[in-house]
Amino acid sequence: MRFAAIGLDHRHIYDLTEGLIAAGGVCVGHTAPTSDPRVLEGFRKRFPDVPAMGQEQLLDDPSIGFVVIAAVPRNRAALAIAAMRRGKDVMVDKPGLTTQAQLQEVTQVAEETGRNWSVCWGQAVSRAGQAALELVRAGAIGRVVQTLSLAPHRLNRALRPDWFFAPDAYGGIVTDIGSHQIDQFLAFAQADDCRISATIGSFGTAPAGFQDFAEIVMETDATRGYARVDWFTPDGLADWGDGRLFITGTDGTIELRKNLDLLGRSGGDHLFLTDRTSTRHIACAGREVTYYRDFIDAVRERPDRRAVQMRAFAVTRLSLLAQTHAARFAARQ
Amino acid sequence: MRFAAIGLDHRHIYDLTEGLIAAGGVCVGHTAPTSDPRVLEGFRKRFPDVPAMGQEQLLDDPSIGFVVIAAVPRNRAALAIAAMRRGKDVMVDKPGLTTQAQLQEVTQVAEETGRNWSVCWGQAVSRAGQAALELVRAGAIGRVVQTLSLAPHRLNRALRPDWFFAPDAYGGIVTDIGSHQIDQFLAFAQADDCRISATIGSFGTAPAGFQDFAEIVMETDATRGYARVDWFTPDGLADWGDGRLFITGTDGTIELRKNLDLLGRSGGDHLFLTDRTSTRHIACAGREVTYYRDFIDAVRERPDRRAVQMRAFAVTRLSLLAQTHAARFAARQ
Repeated sequence: MRFAAIGLDHRHIYDLTEGLIAAGGVCVGHTAPTSDPRVLEGFRKRFPDVPAMGQEQLLDDPSIGFVVIAAVPRNRAALAIAAMRRGKDVMVDKPGLTTQAQLQEVTQVAEETGRNWSVCWGQAVSRAGQAALELVRAGAIGRVVQTLSLAPHRLNRALRPDWFFAPDAYGGIVTDIGSHQIDQFLAFAQADDCRISATIGSFGTAPAGFQDFAEIVMETDATRGYARVDWFTPDGLADWGDGRLFITGTDGTIELRKNLDLLGRSGGDHLFLTDRTSTRHIACAGREVTYYRDFIDAVRERPDRRAVQMRAFAVTRLSLLAQTHAARFAARQ
Repeated sequence: MRFAAIGLDHRHIYDLTEGLIAAGGVCVGHTAPTSDPRVLEGFRKRFPDVPAMGQEQLLDDPSIGFVVIAAVPRNRAALAIAAMRRGKDVMVDKPGLTTQAQLQEVTQVAEETGRNWSVCWGQAVSRAGQAALELVRAGAIGRVVQTLSLAPHRLNRALRPDWFFAPDAYGGIVTDIGSHQIDQFLAFAQADDCRISATIGSFGTAPAGFQDFAEIVMETDATRGYARVDWFTPDGLADWGDGRLFITGTDGTIELRKNLDLLGRSGGDHLFLTDRTSTRHIACAGREVTYYRDFIDAVRERPDRRAVQMRAFAVTRLSLLAQTHAARFAARQ
């Protein structure tokens, strides 16, 4: 399964490409970034055998099955549409797009062309997250009462291009780093949709009004969800963020320490399960992330395209809804 | 400083009495419980030298400076009022009372009599909580962006008397176990008041409609707060609840593992501080809890009665407000 990497503006393109290659994909070419040449350097270092090519050339190549996109978020929809119109399936970095109008257009084009449009949300494809989903689906903690997610991110100001601080370019904090959490909630609630609201905070991170904090509250008829995302990972932390997920069930609880076990066990993807009889630690770091293989299988076999991409559209719709109608909290300093 | 324990309906009376004795108080008598004789057995085992006495006799004794109350919550206000009218200061287990009318009456009587009315919220007087407050006040994590608290509790159905399941007796989940969290938020936000809302959930714990889950969202002009309380501690956990507090600051973060460090270090009161330079574990289990000593000092010296009890009234008012106006979530099963 041959694919191309187009729109190399965010470093997430490294993970996406690596995941696809590990799942059997062959990356046959890449385009250049529009914003930050440093992303290109990192790509060349990781994938020295993948040649730089023109975007049109890649989109015209009938041997290429799909493209993977990590352009500036506001440009992702146009690239995805161009690719789908030329017979390519699409995997896109989160957020898949940034406006309601883009969502309508991508939905329509995916429908017309019969192409896959999949967003890699990251959280739901984490190793510990996958393991937790399997436990929950197997009934290990009874009915899910609530998922509660903490997702601090390191700002890394020196590494960030200008578009990173322009809300219309990245779509706002809920659309950007909140969409992960919405996807994750739907996965654990085993739901295709939810009620959603959000509060967006500005606690003084420059530039003025930068959305450095958000809370998202979600619910289905059976399950509650809460997520906090922010840009306040302290410099003294050993990873980019101390991501946690707490799942409360009627008969047990699960905690994920996604990035690191603070001053405890080494590495990430730690899962702690407590049920009626005991508390256990499950190390998930060695597990395969199945998202990339599932995507390639879906592109190749097309067994049920809607099942693959349904959540991509639902999560994108919910992210935009919550971002648009969020309450705003500008902190007094 | 001589005191009496009256209204022995909740086992919290053990901790309150122990704390006061450790802080130099002398418990000169106790009354009997109105609901659950097992509480009395436990009290006698822990404090064999404290004699059982009549309530009127204790309230009439001019040598007794204050009373400590852990009656059925709906009866606490009346006991506190009786004690204040007879010249006694009051320390009461949380919740201090259960209705708006009781709050007005207690406020008025405290004002008229000049007596202290202090509620022991528990969380803010924990060792790790005290240590965290000191760090925050010293600027260790910059400005406080948010506090996020997880407070699961074990239901222990077999140990619970009937009043435990009657909302008018215990006041509802926000009033009861949520008031802790409100007190804690105000402490870290260094505020006397906040905006507040809540959602109360029923996920099927018998009896029907039992309030087994709640979320509380708080904000001042500078700080956000979120708390989840629930009755879903699994039987396989080594303590009654895996209480956590995450404090996000502009320059650092603090995590408290209040009850236990899941499959990690032994004991409770673990504090993890991450700032611009490092991540550190601070063991707080050996520290003195100062609440009881502060209360006794305030009763003895009366330097500023209002400062001691101000938060008791504010937190009680906010708890009742949030409990009364909470959104309700009855989970589909």
